[in-house]
Parts: sequence; C-alpha cells; structure tokens
Amino acid sequence: MNIGIVGLGLIGGSLGLDLRRLGHQVLGVSRQEQTCHQAIDLGIADHTSTNLSLLAEAQVVFICTPIAVIAPTVEKLIPDLSAEVVLTDVGSVKQAVVEQVAPLWPNFIGGHPMAGTAESGIEAAQPNLFAGNSYVLTPVETTPASALQIVEEIVRSLTTKVYICTPEDHDQAVAWISHLPVMVSNSLIDACLSETEPSISLLSQKLASSGFRDTSRVGGGNPELGVMMARYNQRQLLRSLVSYRQSLEQLIETLEKEDWQTLEKRLQLAQLRRPEFFT
Amino acid sequence: MNIGIVGLGLIGGSLGLDLRRLGHQVLGVSRQEQTCHQAIDLGIADHTSTNLSLLAEAQVVFICTPIAVIAPTVEKLIPDLSAEVVLTDVGSVKQAVVEQVAPLWPNFIGGHPMAGTAESGIEAAQPNLFAGNSYVLTPVETTPASALQIVEEIVRSLTTKVYICTPEDHDQAVAWISHLPVMVSNSLIDACLSETEPSISLLSQKLASSGFRDTSRVGGGNPELGVMMARYNQRQLLRSLVSYRQSLEQLIETLEKEDWQTLEKRLQLAQLRRPEFFT
Repeated sequence: MNIGIVGLGLIGGSLGLDLRRLGHQVLGVSRQEQTCHQAIDLGIADHTSTNLSLLAEAQVVFICTPIAVIAPTVEKLIPDLSAEVVLTDVGSVKQAVVEQVAPLWPNFIGGHPMAGTAESGIEAAQPNLFAGNSYVLTPVETTPASALQIVEEIVRSLTTKVYICTPEDHDQAVAWISHLPVMVSNSLIDACLSETEPSISLLSQKLASSGFRDTSRVGGGNPELGVMMARYNQRQLLRSLVSYRQSLEQLIETLEKEDWQTLEKRLQLAQLRRPEFFT
Repeated sequence: MNIGIVGLGLIGGSLGLDLRRLGHQVLGVSRQEQTCHQAIDLGIADHTSTNLSLLAEAQVVFICTPIAVIAPTVEKLIPDLSAEVVLTDVGSVKQAVVEQVAPLWPNFIGGHPMAGTAESGIEAAQPNLFAGNSYVLTPVETTPASALQIVEEIVRSLTTKVYICTPEDHDQAVAWISHLPVMVSNSLIDACLSETEPSISLLSQKLASSGFRDTSRVGGGNPELGVMMARYNQRQLLRSLVSYRQSLEQLIETLEKEDWQTLEKRLQLAQLRRPEFFT
C-alpha cells in the first residue's frame, strides 16, 4: 500500500519505520528540507518532499503534525487527493480535531496512539514504538465503515491494542488518566513553592525523595504539552478538575473533623481499586 | 557502646545490623518471642528479650515502635533507666512525639531517618538502609547538648546526611514533600473512581499508563501509614492542603478564563524549579 505521512517527528517517524518494514511504500512530507533528507537516511520513508503534492499517489495518509496544524494541513492537502483516499491523524485529543476535519474530508477517521517517549523529533523515532500499546480510533456517524476498516487493519499490524469509541469518550478518558494527573501534579509543585519560610522551604528540598519525585513528575514536564491538553480538551479536563476539587474538599473536611475511620476507608478503597487501572 | 533498640521491624532491625557491624553491643526488645529469636539469627542484636529491663545496661536507646506506642513505651522503660541514658526515636512525625516524650525523659532527642522500602517487619531489615539518606534530628530548648551530640555521632557513623531543625519545621517540611503528595495522589484515584459512565470508566482503565501510574502511586499505598500522617501531623498537613487547594483553584480559574499565557507561565515555572527538590 502507498501510505503518506505528514509530519516526520517522533510519531510520524516511528510509524514510517514500522510501515516500511511491513512492506508498505512510505511517502513522507515535512516542512523542513533537512528532515526530508534525514527521513531517507534513517529508513523512515521511500520518498520525501516539502510539498504535499507528493501524497497524490497515497491511498492512506497519517497526519502527524501538532494538533493546531492538523485541520490547516488537511485543507492544503485536499486539492491533491482523490475522494477514495483515507485520512487519519494521531492527535492526543479527538473531539476538537474530528469536528474540524470530518466536514472537510468525510473519508477521515480520528486516531490516537498511546505511545511516546520523553524525547521528540525525527531523531527520537524508533521501530516498534507502538507495539503492545493502545491505539484509539474514534469514528463518528459520518465515518465510512471502509475508512475505519482500512486504518484499523494498518494499526493492528503494528501489534497495538485497538480501542474504538466516540471522540467525546476518548477525550473524557484521557482527561482522567493523562491530563488531570498533569494538573494535579503541577499544583503540588506550585503549592510547595508557595512556602514563604526559607528554612522550611530549604528543608523540604533536602528531604524530598521518591514520593515527591513520582507525584511531581508529570506536573514538571513539557509546558507546551500541558497548554495543548488544556486548550484542546478544556471542557472534559475542567469536568475532571471540578470532580477532583470536590474529592479534595471532602478529604480536607475529613481531616478537619478528625474522622480517622472515614479517612482509612477512603485510603483502603484507593489501595484496593488502583490496580484496576493496570490490568 | 551498649545500644538498645525497642521494636525490631524494618527500621529497628536495619539499625541493629549496622550498629553491630560498627562494633556496638546491641540489645533488642520486641513484644514477640519469635521476633527476638529471629533478631539473633539474622545478626540484628547480641541479646534480645520481650522485657524492657534488658535495656538497664544500655547507654543509648532507639525507640523504633509505631508512633502511637512511643510515649507509652518510654513510660514503661523509665523505671529501668539511669538518668544518663539518652533516648531517641525514629518516628516520621516529630512535634507530637517530642511534646509527649521530652517531659517524661529530658535526656531525649527526636529523630527521623528518611529511609524505607515498600516492605515492613524484621524480614525486611537490611544492612546500609540509611547510608546516603537524610536523618533529621529535632532538639528543643530542654534537650541537653550532650544528647544531641551522642545521637548525632551514632547517626553520622551510618553515613547519613544529618539535618538539625525544630520539630515544627520538620513536620511542615515532611507535610509538603511526603504527606501532601499522598493526599493529592489519593484524591486523583478517588476522583477517577467517581466517573459514573461505565464506558468512560472502562476506557480510562484501559488507557492508563506511566503518567497515571506515577501520580497515583503513593495515594494507593498503605492506608495505616496515611492515617498516621494525618493523625499525628494534622495541623501542618492541613496547612499544606489548604495552600494546595488554593493553587488548584487558581488553575481551574485560569482554564475557565482560557488564559493560556498564564497557564504556560505556571507550567514553565514548575518545570524550571522542580529540580531544586533533587539536588
């Protein structure tokens, strides 16, 4: 199959490596001339160009750009495509993307591979990045069954675990387990930095160990990524944050009332049920 | 030196292993006959007993019982001690302990080794558990300089990093970097469990990965430990929690106002300053 990839970063580049190994012809497009050369050198694509017209021969195109650029890229791409071409994206929020792109190109299905590393860019691309990880596909009413089928088949061939759901359900699920943790964790760092007594502040820094390290990790991560989550998944993230605030307020009330039995039950429930998230 | 240890669990047991290796004579007391036998077999103590009178010959005694039992243990121990004996404890909160014990035994200094593993009990005892880790000592006005000096010397010989501060400063510092993370993390699990739509709930569980894993770890830990933190460090933990709630409310307001510039600055500050906690 001729498969196009727009945006040759960590995700687009890793996808190219796997798809070529599976026998597909990969056509890669990047804004940067240098990235196009690197993609050839690294075995990520068979042909590359800075011009979207390279994709005129593709049967399926993966849009692997930052979220803000997905819809504008599709608009520019349309004049070069015949109607049978299936488009998909790899953005980490789905409702905002699908609402923008589906009206532009009906033969589109939103996707989100749950894979990543701390690095980014084409140099970070690696084979088997997706193997064993989840890959969510989010068809809507207007999505042709054939578009879902074609992309699902490609994605399964990467040995991913495929989940199919609505864009709304996807966005609420990632709000809970990916975007809310970033905000919760960021607020921990923010609160600790608010200590005004220098001796306590310094001692906190000296005594911090694995508990603080793990709980603060994602909140001290890439700021652009955090803004992106909030911006494109604002409604669902706020729903999670409001629910979290309510839970925190109950906890504070429990401590104020010295209701140790209620606190113990709450901590027991969390210990009991946390493993459900890792089965 | 003759060093007594009351409570032969993870901390007391590990302390015994190190102190014997350093040439001290270790006298171990446990409520359990079986633990006394194990302590001898494992090389944790030279002599053991279920009776506190074994410690009549000790020059320094480490109280390594659960926090709730520290003061009652000191009360029972007093009749067997001569006035020069230095007492210290290893409890993870200090103000409540020092306030109870210092009036009972002036020759006392509170201590807190920042070391631990997920396991507990004498079977978990290991050599060099404290090496390279922080050890806080919390003298008060009535603490004799000699008591601080003697315990500090022993603790330094375990190659720990010793910090000396007031019990209040200690408790506020551990509230920030140890107890607050547990409550923040527990509230994350609690909030995620509040999702009432089964399809979203199930999808969240399927998609959870390293971000959720790290941020929820300490909140899904030992419930007894969590209750202990809240119970014995209630005032300082509440101070941290209220400050955290304020930080969270500012974040929610920023998202509601779609003030992405403020959000980005906040995330950048956390990314920039988090490393201060790990120098």
